Amino acid sequence: MSSKSVKASVLHGVKDLRIDSVSLPPPGPLDLQIDVRSTTLCGSDLHYYHHYRLGDILVNSPMAPGHEASGIVTSVGDSLTSDWSVGDRVALEVGLPCENCDTCKGGQYNLCAGMRFRSSAKSTPHFWGTLQETINHPAKWCHKLPPHVSYATASLLEPLSVAIHSTRRTLRNGSLAPGSTVLIIGAGAVGLLVGAMAKLSGASRIIITDINEGRTDFAVKEGFATQGIVVPPPAKRPETIEEKLAIAKENAATLTKAVGREGSGADATFECTGMETCVQTGIYATRPGGTLVLVGMGVPIQTLPISAAALREVDIVGSFRYANTYPAGIEIVSKGLIPNLEKIITHTYHGLSQVGDAFSMASRQRDDEGNLVIKVECSMPEK
Amino acid sequence: MSSKSVKASVLHGVKDLRIDSVSLPPPGPLDLQIDVRSTTLCGSDLHYYHHYRLGDILVNSPMAPGHEASGIVTSVGDSLTSDWSVGDRVALEVGLPCENCDTCKGGQYNLCAGMRFRSSAKSTPHFWGTLQETINHPAKWCHKLPPHVSYATASLLEPLSVAIHSTRRTLRNGSLAPGSTVLIIGAGAVGLLVGAMAKLSGASRIIITDINEGRTDFAVKEGFATQGIVVPPPAKRPETIEEKLAIAKENAATLTKAVGREGSGADATFECTGMETCVQTGIYATRPGGTLVLVGMGVPIQTLPISAAALREVDIVGSFRYANTYPAGIEIVSKGLIPNLEKIITHTYHGLSQVGDAFSMASRQRDDEGNLVIKVECSMPEK
Amino acid sequence: MSSKSVKASVLHGVKDLRIDSVSLPPPGPLDLQIDVRSTTLCGSDLHYYHHYRLGDILVNSPMAPGHEASGIVTSVGDSLTSDWSVGDRVALEVGLPCENCDTCKGGQYNLCAGMRFRSSAKSTPHFWGTLQETINHPAKWCHKLPPHVSYATASLLEPLSVAIHSTRRTLRNGSLAPGSTVLIIGAGAVGLLVGAMAKLSGASRIIITDINEGRTDFAVKEGFATQGIVVPPPAKRPETIEEKLAIAKENAATLTKAVGREGSGADATFECTGMETCVQTGIYATRPGGTLVLVGMGVPIQTLPISAAALREVDIVGSFRYANTYPAGIEIVSKGLIPNLEKIITHTYHGLSQVGDAFSMASRQRDDEGNLVIKVECSMPEK
Amino acid sequence: MSSKSVKASVLHGVKDLRIDSVSLPPPGPLDLQIDVRSTTLCGSDLHYYHHYRLGDILVNSPMAPGHEASGIVTSVGDSLTSDWSVGDRVALEVGLPCENCDTCKGGQYNLCAGMRFRSSAKSTPHFWGTLQETINHPAKWCHKLPPHVSYATASLLEPLSVAIHSTRRTLRNGSLAPGSTVLIIGAGAVGLLVGAMAKLSGASRIIITDINEGRTDFAVKEGFATQGIVVPPPAKRPETIEEKLAIAKENAATLTKAVGREGSGADATFECTGMETCVQTGIYATRPGGTLVLVGMGVPIQTLPISAAALREVDIVGSFRYANTYPAGIEIVSKGLIPNLEKIITHTYHGLSQVGDAFSMASRQRDDEGNLVIKVECSMPEK
Repeated sequence: MSSKSVKASVLHGVKDLRIDSVSLPPPGPLDLQIDVRSTTLCGSDLHYYHHYRLGDILVNSPMAPGHEASGIVTSVGDSLTSDWSVGDRVALEVGLPCENCDTCKGGQYNLCAGMRFRSSAKSTPHFWGTLQETINHPAKWCHKLPPHVSYATASLLEPLSVAIHSTRRTLRNGSLAPGSTVLIIGAGAVGLLVGAMAKLSGASRIIITDINEGRTDFAVKEGFATQGIVVPPPAKRPETIEEKLAIAKENAATLTKAVGREGSGADATFECTGMETCVQTGIYATRPGGTLVLVGMGVPIQTLPISAAALREVDIVGSFRYANTYPAGIEIVSKGLIPNLEKIITHTYHGLSQVGDAFSMASRQRDDEGNLVIKVECSMPEK
Repeated sequence: MSSKSVKASVLHGVKDLRIDSVSLPPPGPLDLQIDVRSTTLCGSDLHYYHHYRLGDILVNSPMAPGHEASGIVTSVGDSLTSDWSVGDRVALEVGLPCENCDTCKGGQYNLCAGMRFRSSAKSTPHFWGTLQETINHPAKWCHKLPPHVSYATASLLEPLSVAIHSTRRTLRNGSLAPGSTVLIIGAGAVGLLVGAMAKLSGASRIIITDINEGRTDFAVKEGFATQGIVVPPPAKRPETIEEKLAIAKENAATLTKAVGREGSGADATFECTGMETCVQTGIYATRPGGTLVLVGMGVPIQTLPISAAALREVDIVGSFRYANTYPAGIEIVSKGLIPNLEKIITHTYHGLSQVGDAFSMASRQRDDEGNLVIKVECSMPEK
Repeated sequence: MSSKSVKASVLHGVKDLRIDSVSLPPPGPLDLQIDVRSTTLCGSDLHYYHHYRLGDILVNSPMAPGHEASGIVTSVGDSLTSDWSVGDRVALEVGLPCENCDTCKGGQYNLCAGMRFRSSAKSTPHFWGTLQETINHPAKWCHKLPPHVSYATASLLEPLSVAIHSTRRTLRNGSLAPGSTVLIIGAGAVGLLVGAMAKLSGASRIIITDINEGRTDFAVKEGFATQGIVVPPPAKRPETIEEKLAIAKENAATLTKAVGREGSGADATFECTGMETCVQTGIYATRPGGTLVLVGMGVPIQTLPISAAALREVDIVGSFRYANTYPAGIEIVSKGLIPNLEKIITHTYHGLSQVGDAFSMASRQRDDEGNLVIKVECSMPEK
Repeated sequence: MSSKSVKASVLHGVKDLRIDSVSLPPPGPLDLQIDVRSTTLCGSDLHYYHHYRLGDILVNSPMAPGHEASGIVTSVGDSLTSDWSVGDRVALEVGLPCENCDTCKGGQYNLCAGMRFRSSAKSTPHFWGTLQETINHPAKWCHKLPPHVSYATASLLEPLSVAIHSTRRTLRNGSLAPGSTVLIIGAGAVGLLVGAMAKLSGASRIIITDINEGRTDFAVKEGFATQGIVVPPPAKRPETIEEKLAIAKENAATLTKAVGREGSGADATFECTGMETCVQTGIYATRPGGTLVLVGMGVPIQTLPISAAALREVDIVGSFRYANTYPAGIEIVSKGLIPNLEKIITHTYHGLSQVGDAFSMASRQRDDEGNLVIKVECSMPEK
C-alpha cells in the first residue's frame, strides 16, 4: 500500500480556508484509515478561523481545522486484530496523550502534558484536524458506532464528552445527584449538553441562563433545561469591581430565587462562557458545599469574590476536555437517552467546497430566516 | 393541653392485631402532634405480624406496627418556631438517632448505635409504629410536603429513601452513572424503587430479575427497569456448595449476557432479596471494579465465592436504611421524576378496622383477581 | 443552684480590654459548667482587639474574646447521663450549629447558616468567648481529655482542627497521600499545623514558605516541614496585574524547583495567608489535577489567573473552620503524633489580669529577647 | 545486536528448579535490557514451587519464577528517548496490562483482563519471572531508582505496592486517616508493609495479629505496628459454622478490646491471610461504616456473617495487586519514610546456584538459629 493524495480544507490565514491536496501515507500498523463523514464546528475552530490563533497559541503553518468528527474505516493497520474491519463506522477521539507519563497511566489523560490534539496549534508541527477527506488515526482512539447512530450524532460525542467530563467533576462531593438543583451559565452547545447530562443524572431543577432569549427558549423547549432565565447585559456598563460584583450578586439573586434557593444557591453550577461576570455570578449562585465547574474557556485572568467561595466551601473546579467518556457517550446516544440531541445541529453543509460557508454561518447568532445557529455540521458525502 | 385517648392497631402476638385505646400526651416542646393519614406496609411489618419477632429480635410487649407514613399536623410543640402550623402535611422520618455520637455528628446517622426506630422491637420499651390515629413526633424528623404530593406517595418516601441510600452507596466509585448497566436482583417494592433511582441516575440498561414473571413484567411495563429476566428456581434443589455456585454462575451468565456484558458484568448490582444464591449470583454478575450493594436483609450467614469478588475488586457494600434522603426524595416525587411511583401501591385499605385485612393481603403474591400484590397501604380517613 | 458572679476579660472597644463581673446562670440541663483553664489567642481575636470588628462584622456590644480553649467541669446539667462528672477535663468545641438544617444533619455542620460561634460578633447578641473564669457549654460540644494531655495542648485542638479539616479537603482526589509533595504558604500557627497534618498523612516533601525566615527555620527545625523557603517581598512593589502575576509565577517556579517539581507543581498546596499574591502563587505552584486549599482568610476579592487553574484542573477549595475533627485531634495529641506541638505556644500569660499583655505580645513578631512569637496562651490558675 | 544466551532459574515441576540457558533477543524498540540484581520471593512463587500450580492455575511448561525485582539497564531499545541510559538502575513493574481496554485507559490497569504478569502461569505462553540473569522489559514499566536506594529495597517496592494499593482502597470513605485505628490480620511480609503504610497514613493505633508471636513481636519492635496480639488457634477445632463464628466473634472482641474499641471496632481492617476464620473476625472487628480490605488471597469460597457487615455498612473491598503505585513507592523509600523496611528481608542468597536454597528457606518459619524467616532475597552478583 502506498501514499495517496487526499483533499483537505486548510486554513492559511485569517478567514483564508483553501482546498489543498495532501499526501496521506498508508495507515501505521496500529492505525485505521478513515474517510471522514462528519465534522461539527466548535468555538475553537472559529477562533482559529477569525484570528489564526487561539489565545496565546499562534498558528505557525497551514492547518486543517475540525475535531468533532466521525467516519468510516477504509483500511486497517497491519498489527490490528480482527476486531477491526473496513466498513466499521467510528467516532474519533482526537486527542492523543503520551500514554507514558504517570498522569496517563493513572487515567487522567486529558491532563497529559504531552497531549497532541487535532486542530490545535499547540503542538508543532500542528496535528491537523478532521476537515479532510481521509485521515489515519490510532485504532485505540477510534470508537465503533452502533448502526443506528448517525455520523452527525457521532460527531457530537466530542462536545458531549466535554459535558460528561464536566458533570463527572461534581461526583466527588455528590453535588449533582437525583433531585439536585443545577445552574448552567451560557446556553451555547456545551451549555445545552451539560443540561442534558444534568437531566440524565437526575437533577430536578436545571436553570439555564444566557443573554440570548432564543437560546434559553430553545433549551427549555427541547428539554435541555427545566427553566430559562434571560439575564440582560446591564444598562450601564459597570466600571469598578464593586459595580461589577454588585451586578453579579444581583444576577445570582435572580437565578437562585428562580429555583427557590434564594439565600443558598444551586447544588452545582456550570459556567460555560468563560466570562468574568459569569464566574462571579456562579460563585454567588452556588450553595455552601456545592461545586462551581469552570467549563468555558475564557478570560484567563479574572477578579473574583474568592472569600464568598472559600468561606462557604464552594469548590471551584476546572474541567478540561475529557477522558474515558466515549464509551459512556456512545451508550447514551445509542439508547437515545438525550432525545433531542441532534437538534443542536441547526445547519449542515455538504462537501469540502462548503466548509467556508459553514464557518460563516457558525460565526452568526441567527440565520437569514431568523433561526438560531447553534452547531454547524460539515457533512462529507460518500465517495 | 392534656393527654388524650387515641386508637391504635396493636400487635399482641402472632397474627393478633387489635384496636386498642392508648393515652397520648401533649406534644413535647419540639414535637409535632400528627394525625396519621397513610401507612404503607413493609416486609418487616409482615415478619412481626407472622412471627412476633424479626430474626433475633423478639417482641416483648404489644406494639403498633408501621413505619412508612405520612399525616397532618394537629398540634405544634411550644418551643417550635413559626415554621410549623396546624394543617401542615408531613412525611415522617421514623428513625430517631441519638444525635450525640460521632456517627450522628458526622451525618451517617443511620449507623447510630442508639437509634430508636418506630415499629422495631430492638429498642425497649418498643417505639410504637404509625398505625395509630395520632402520634407525637419530633419536628426535626418531619418533612413538609408540597400540596400536590399525596399522602400515599409521601408514605412511599420511606422505601424510596432505602433506594436512594442504596444508590448513593455506589457514588464513591462512580459505578452508577449516566450510561451505566445495572442489575437488580428481586423485583419487590424495594427492587422496583432501586430501579427507579438507577434510571433517574442515568443508567441505560437496568435489568431486573426475579422468579416471578408478573413482577419483572410489571417492572418493565411501568418503567422501573429496561429489561426483565425471570430466573426460575433450579429443577433439582442443589445440595453441595459446588452445585449452588454452579447455578449462581449460570444465572450470572444469563443475566450478563442479556445486557451484553458476558464475561464482564454489570457496573452496579443491587441485591434486594437477601438470599444466599442471589448474593452469589450478584458477585459473579458484577464487572471488575464494580459494586455489589446488599440492600435486602436476609440470611445472616452465607457461603460466598469471596475470591471472585476480591480478585476483581467487586466491592461488597451494605446499605442499611438511609440518612439525609428525605429532602431529595421529596424533590423527586414533587417533580414527578418517577412517573409511575404510586402504581406500586396495588391495594389500599381504609381505617384501623381494615388493618388486619391489609396485612392478610400484603402476605399474598396475587389477589383473588390475579393482580399482583406489591405494596399495601393503610389509609386513614380524615376525622 | 443559682446564678453566680464570675470574672471575664471583656473587649469594650479598640484595645480596650477590661475585667468585668458577669452573672453566670446555672448550667442548662444538657450543659456543663466549666472553669476555663487555657485559651490560646488567634488572629481573629487580634483583629477584634485592634479594630473592634472583623472584616464586615462590627462588634455592637462588649464581648469576651477567645475560642481556643480547655477547662475543667465544675457542674453537670440535670439531664446529662453519668458519662459526665465534676472534674472531667475537656476541650471546648466552641461553634454551636443549629442541628436542624440539612447541612447539620448531613454532617457538614461547619457550613450551617445558623452557627453560633464563641467570640465571633456575627451572631447577635454576641456569643461570648472563653476568656472568662467560668462558662456554661453544651456537653455535646465538649470533648473529654485523657489525663496526660495538658490544657495548653487541648486549647491547640482548635487550630489543629482547622488544619485537620483543611487536609481532609484534599482526600477526595487523593492529592495528599503517602509520598505526596505539599506546599504550605504562610508559616504562622495554622501553616505549621497544616504542615504537621501533611507529615502525619505521609507527605514526603513539605515545603513551607514565608517572608519571615525565623518562621520557616522554626518550621523545619521543629519538624513541621521538610524544607523552608523564604520568599522576600519584591524589591519594587508591583503595580499592574501583569507585574503581580509575573512575580507570582516566579515565586511558584522557585518553590516548585525546590521540591523537584519544576514545570509541574505540588500535589496539594495550602494557602494560609489569604493574600492575593499568595493565592496566585498557589495556583501556579500546584500540579495538574492537584488541589489548592484556601485556608487563610484574607482579601475577599482577588484577581487570579483562573485559566491556569481551570485548564489544568487544579481544584480551588475553601476550608472553613472544621467539623468532626475533635475526636481525631484528641487521638492525635494523645498519642503524641505531633511531637513538638506545644512548642508553637511561645508565650504564656497567667490570669485574667495578664490578658492585655497577652494580646500585646500576640500582636508582635518577636519578643524583646528576639524570640519568635507564634502562639500566645492565656492560662487560668486553679482557683 | 543479536540474541544472546543467558542463564535462568527455571521451575520444571514440583520443587524442581534447574539452571537453564535461554536465548534472549535484543530489546524491542521500546524495551530495556536489564541485568536482574535482586528478586525477593513471595508466597505465590512458593506455591508454584511446592505445587507447580497456583489454585486453579496449572503450570503447563517450564517457567522462571520471581516478580519482585530490580536491576541495571544494559541496553536501550531503539525508539526510546534519551531519558534512558545504560547503567540506569530500575525497579521492575512486572505486570503488563493491555493498555487498550477501557479499564486500562481509565487507570485501573490492575484489573485489566488481558494483563500479562511475570511468573504467573495464567497467560499462555507463560510470561517468565525475574530469576534470570538478564531480561527485556518495556521501559514504560521500569522505574528509575535514586542512587541511594538499594536493589534489595527496590525489589520490595513490589510488595510495598500491594500495601499501598490496599491502603488506597480505604481512601474513599476516609476510614484510614490520621488518628485512625487499624487492624491487620496476618503478620507476614504484606501485613507488615500494610502496617507501615497505615502508620505513614497517620493511623494512631495499629494492631497486628497472628498466631505466631515471633512475627507480632517483630512487627511492634521494628515499628510496623503499635501493638501485637497473638491469637492462638482454638484448643478444639471448631466443626459447625456456629462454633467457627463464635470463635471469630471472640477473637474480634479480644482485638477490639485491645484498642479500646470494644463494641465498635477498627476504622479499617486489612485481612492479609485469606483464611475464612480471619475474614469472619475481620467483619466482626470493624466499626460500622468502616472498611474491611481483603488483601490476602486465600480460600476462594467462604462462609461469612454477611449481615454483620451489611447492616453495619462495613464495606468489604478486595485489593488486587496494584496500579500507579511505583512513583509513590519510590518516593517513600527514597525519603526513608519506612525506617526498617529492609529488615523484612531476613535472608539473602547469592547467585542463581543458590535459588533452590532460597526457596527452601522461604518455605520455613524460622531458620536453624531460630531467627524468623520473613522475606528471602535472591541477590544476583554484578557480572
